[in-house]
Amino acid sequence: MIINVAQLSELLQGEYTGDGETEIHGPSQIDKGIPGTVTFLANPKYEDFAYTTEASALIVQKDFSPKSPLKAALIKVNDVYGAMMFLVEKFGDNGLPETGISDMAQLADGFVRSESISIGAYSVIEKGVTIGKGTVIYPQVYIGHGAQIGEGVMIYPGVRIYPGTIIGDGCIIHSNAVIGCDGFGYRPDEKGHYVKIKHAGKVILEKNVEIGANAVIDRGTLTFTKIGEGSKIDNLVQIAHNVVVGKHTVIAAQAGVAGSSSIGDHARIGGQVGIAGHIHIADRIEIQAQSGVHTGKYSEGSRLFGYPAINYNDYLKSYAVFRQLPDFKKKIEALEKQISALKGE
Amino acid sequence: MIINVAQLSELLQGEYTGDGETEIHGPSQIDKGIPGTVTFLANPKYEDFAYTTEASALIVQKDFSPKSPLKAALIKVNDVYGAMMFLVEKFGDNGLPETGISDMAQLADGFVRSESISIGAYSVIEKGVTIGKGTVIYPQVYIGHGAQIGEGVMIYPGVRIYPGTIIGDGCIIHSNAVIGCDGFGYRPDEKGHYVKIKHAGKVILEKNVEIGANAVIDRGTLTFTKIGEGSKIDNLVQIAHNVVVGKHTVIAAQAGVAGSSSIGDHARIGGQVGIAGHIHIADRIEIQAQSGVHTGKYSEGSRLFGYPAINYNDYLKSYAVFRQLPDFKKKIEALEKQISALKGE
Amino acid sequence: MIINVAQLSELLQGEYTGDGETEIHGPSQIDKGIPGTVTFLANPKYEDFAYTTEASALIVQKDFSPKSPLKAALIKVNDVYGAMMFLVEKFGDNGLPETGISDMAQLADGFVRSESISIGAYSVIEKGVTIGKGTVIYPQVYIGHGAQIGEGVMIYPGVRIYPGTIIGDGCIIHSNAVIGCDGFGYRPDEKGHYVKIKHAGKVILEKNVEIGANAVIDRGTLTFTKIGEGSKIDNLVQIAHNVVVGKHTVIAAQAGVAGSSSIGDHARIGGQVGIAGHIHIADRIEIQAQSGVHTGKYSEGSRLFGYPAINYNDYLKSYAVFRQLPDFKKKIEALEKQISALKGE
Repeated sequence: MIINVAQLSELLQGEYTGDGETEIHGPSQIDKGIPGTVTFLANPKYEDFAYTTEASALIVQKDFSPKSPLKAALIKVNDVYGAMMFLVEKFGDNGLPETGISDMAQLADGFVRSESISIGAYSVIEKGVTIGKGTVIYPQVYIGHGAQIGEGVMIYPGVRIYPGTIIGDGCIIHSNAVIGCDGFGYRPDEKGHYVKIKHAGKVILEKNVEIGANAVIDRGTLTFTKIGEGSKIDNLVQIAHNVVVGKHTVIAAQAGVAGSSSIGDHARIGGQVGIAGHIHIADRIEIQAQSGVHTGKYSEGSRLFGYPAINYNDYLKSYAVFRQLPDFKKKIEALEKQISALKGE
Repeated sequence: MIINVAQLSELLQGEYTGDGETEIHGPSQIDKGIPGTVTFLANPKYEDFAYTTEASALIVQKDFSPKSPLKAALIKVNDVYGAMMFLVEKFGDNGLPETGISDMAQLADGFVRSESISIGAYSVIEKGVTIGKGTVIYPQVYIGHGAQIGEGVMIYPGVRIYPGTIIGDGCIIHSNAVIGCDGFGYRPDEKGHYVKIKHAGKVILEKNVEIGANAVIDRGTLTFTKIGEGSKIDNLVQIAHNVVVGKHTVIAAQAGVAGSSSIGDHARIGGQVGIAGHIHIADRIEIQAQSGVHTGKYSEGSRLFGYPAINYNDYLKSYAVFRQLPDFKKKIEALEKQISALKGE
Repeated sequence: MIINVAQLSELLQGEYTGDGETEIHGPSQIDKGIPGTVTFLANPKYEDFAYTTEASALIVQKDFSPKSPLKAALIKVNDVYGAMMFLVEKFGDNGLPETGISDMAQLADGFVRSESISIGAYSVIEKGVTIGKGTVIYPQVYIGHGAQIGEGVMIYPGVRIYPGTIIGDGCIIHSNAVIGCDGFGYRPDEKGHYVKIKHAGKVILEKNVEIGANAVIDRGTLTFTKIGEGSKIDNLVQIAHNVVVGKHTVIAAQAGVAGSSSIGDHARIGGQVGIAGHIHIADRIEIQAQSGVHTGKYSEGSRLFGYPAINYNDYLKSYAVFRQLPDFKKKIEALEKQISALKGE
């Protein structure tokens, strides 16, 4: 959305001073204002920034009277917070595709169109797929045969959904994420050549799961890989075959969970964490970024750190001494000499 | 595939009891049975699960007689293992596109169609590309000019193949993998501004290589980046320019190999491992997940761990002491005091 | 490009001996020559390779006379280096799409076509997008509404650009990168369920930025995420919301920068590095691959290593002792015994 100061002022039922023609492309923070944006003076303690901000427009309370000249156009409103919320909503508009199915999407024969769905250009919907009402499929998405997509789901451009995947209501899947591809499963034959293990399972995302851009979730070998209700998976995360993630758990960017492990509810997994295969991470465990977790022995609510991961405070204490190790080496050598001397050697 | 209990029983030449109309969407494990699936009682020691499983149907040997009431519909067959294999095959069907070239694919002029190939909608095949017989190109794939794709290859939706790439027979490439993009090569000029180094090389995948979803393999600078026969690369792996991976080597998810390094045959690289540039990893080396390998000095068959990686057992032993470091600090301080006392200080 | 030896010789104004019909698919290095390629003898100290190389053609100086029989066809030229540069240029041709807009691209109403642009098949350009002259949009790209793309930009197949993104002149974005998706921002409610924070900000790439394949850059929450002029971001990198990267900084593959952190100019971030949120990395800092940086306290030009990262040399020294820890344990135990003995215990 691009709008000028006069139009913006009118939308906010405010009054403006300055150049009404100035174009505004979005909001910015008052201390990091950039030309072509509008900012807000909501908290009086930031007033100094009002005179120096690079933003092109400044929204203030009706009764604000500047102590110095302002560079920005001024828009006076009754309720700065309300205006702020209104504009974040307005500029934050993700440009939802219009409801409807593009002529340029390819739908398998027999596709049943439900209410208020949107399917963008160059998307492919294979046989037997069901899509719930209000769901938005952006352009260039692939949905493999037999996948079941719930209601009010958002699937961004370039997402690939392999056959049989089940996606619950209210899920959001960001661009180029891949859901349901084969797990990394092979059996070495007598020559050490790897023979692919057939994957017949699927991926289940429960309600209100969000999956980040370029994340990958492998299908189960025989049964399923599952992400529990309300859990949030960040960009570039790897979830291997047969993994089960509980409810309301967050997994930050570039973390990876190896095959057949499970994670409890309300856990918090940091970025770039690695979790070994075939272990269980208890509820409410917190894992510090980049840690490598090789065991499921830590109890509910534990906080882990390190490689391999141990209790957070234990790792910090050991690492503090690790940093002094060259000194320790000298101390031990000194002790050895002194003892030799004492022993008369 | 969706099928009901009666149809399933008929397919398996079995006999069923219970509701023949119940719909079955796939297989599940007996201890993790889910409604709408069929499970198997193959090993008598799991019999207890037969009475509690949530699966809607249960396949058993002909001579099975339940000791308690069953919730699941029962299908009696001659050979439970055979039925299991049959169904994994059946439900695991990936929905191969039908043979043929979609009207909605864009083929460069002069494209020569070989036998039994399939090219999906919205795929783009540039000039000079060759595709071997029996190869499946799913929808939304991009194949840059001059790429040579072998026979019996599977390329899933959203894969991007840059110009000149060579892909051997029997390779499988999962969704959104990128093969052949420019390496991360720049020269700083006198101001420290980076000048891009032209990449003229290519990527060669030998026979029966599998590449995971969202993995990236950079092209060679002048010559090539190569993945040897039968090697398997997991999701989100990074292979930099000029890297050569040997035959029958596996590289787990999110691992990265920096420029111009090489890896031998039958090596096993764990998830999130990092391998520095310009080193050689010997044949049959095993690298523990998340390790950082900075040297090529370890010999064939070594097992590595740590950051930087050292021999597996050495790292474990050192790490065991690392965990006791705060105690050691106290011990050394105590020793110092005792010696001072002994010396009469 | 495929060419035969006779044609190649003619292009280089050289003279050839051997089979003029032999097909050449690209260049290779003399010590790693492969059949079907042409190599170069530029430095006399590599002459031995000339007799053993597997390459099908060899380019040499006019006055070269072989001491032994050659397997490769020989092409004699006046200037081997010049020929080399010419061929890298020739074979390195990335197959730029022809200028023009594909009939199979979907352009929003009102799209204004600028000079010499190229938009490939199955790309989608939403409302309000501007694209500068000479910019190449490959097939299968998505550009969200209101995005502003500069001049001379290259956007490879499968890139997804969310609404409002601003891309400066001369940027290069590799396949399947995602620019401008929502950050990983949630607020837990009283039940510990995560409520999505609306993202209204954008991504700004300044001039001459390069973004690797499958990299992800999240949009700002309210304002922006920015990559400074001339900075280079490798494959599979994660840049979280509100991050600001300075100018002429390089970030290697699979590194991640958490939310609201900033990185100075001319910094060098290794592969798989993790940088915590809300910290500042000073100008010209170098971070060793896989390090985890948790603090912004290190000054300009520092070199960091470790987990958590400390000064490079300090980490190496401590790690050298870490490797001797099992010995140290024994030494301390021996010291304790000797002191007990000395004390007459």
